[in-house]
Amino acid sequence: MIHELTVVQFTKMLKNLSAILDKAAAHAEAKKFDVDVLLGSRLAPDQFNLTRQIQIVCDTAKLCVARLTNKEAPSHADTEKTLPELKTRIDSVIAYLATYDANDFEGSAARHISQPRWEGKYLTGDEFLLQHAIPNFYFHIATAYAILRHNGVEVGKKDYLGAMPFKK
Amino acid sequence: MIHELTVVQFTKMLKNLSAILDKAAAHAEAKKFDVDVLLGSRLAPDQFNLTRQIQIVCDTAKLCVARLTNKEAPSHADTEKTLPELKTRIDSVIAYLATYDANDFEGSAARHISQPRWEGKYLTGDEFLLQHAIPNFYFHIATAYAILRHNGVEVGKKDYLGAMPFKK
Repeated sequence: MIHELTVVQFTKMLKNLSAILDKAAAHAEAKKFDVDVLLGSRLAPDQFNLTRQIQIVCDTAKLCVARLTNKEAPSHADTEKTLPELKTRIDSVIAYLATYDANDFEGSAARHISQPRWEGKYLTGDEFLLQHAIPNFYFHIATAYAILRHNGVEVGKKDYLGAMPFKK
Repeated sequence: MIHELTVVQFTKMLKNLSAILDKAAAHAEAKKFDVDVLLGSRLAPDQFNLTRQIQIVCDTAKLCVARLTNKEAPSHADTEKTLPELKTRIDSVIAYLATYDANDFEGSAARHISQPRWEGKYLTGDEFLLQHAIPNFYFHIATAYAILRHNGVEVGKKDYLGAMPFKK
């Protein structure tokens, strides 16, 4: 199930986010303001702006799968200044996720996961995934969505969730 | 893993949310305004307010486990008007989640899940959990958090995530 929770679902949500950014661009164009205003927007003065929220979403996804499998994730310099650059970053993470298959996550649940700021402490793979990576991933996507929603972009829950694979 | 993704993690996040609401109450008291102002706040005029976000978080959690196991969830009348009432609602869902153990989710991944508004269509249990319930649950918690953050309540990522079970 780890592959579905990470690679499959992160990919779906990143595509949804990219489509939401297209709606933001269309909204800015219709209202005749520069979409960069939205990229610099935030909900509180000491909160990360939209650009940073998107960068963190991307990093949360790539670092989650890399750490769970003990691989090295590709680095990104956080230099995006425009919406097309942010969409390219999202695409690059989607392409990276596509290099994983379910077998890569064998043993991941029990792996010891750490990161520099944890000063030698660790979580098991399943703790890291369930209590850290997944809540963080959705947090930053929902926050990006909230920043746009607050600024009048017409997005709804379906844009966030994406299509459901309904069967009859 | 379904029990950990739902019962265990939903319970942790609901407790975090309840603690965040305590911070909201303390903030309102310190600033000498009625905390009900926060309960009625929203980030856009056509978005659900904080009270409704909390009610939906609660329903998403209880209906997720009930549907996955083909049980009947307790009903809540959505009549909460005060912060203590909302905290009681959260507590009641935490107590409901505690009635489940891992064995209850045997066969859940393949179960056909539907709800009235899906007009007879269904998702499999794992599709419902991964693509619908989990993203929705975190969406409404993050939105509740964002409404409070936007209104000056001093909450941080740690309040949202809760404590990590770090080992050394």
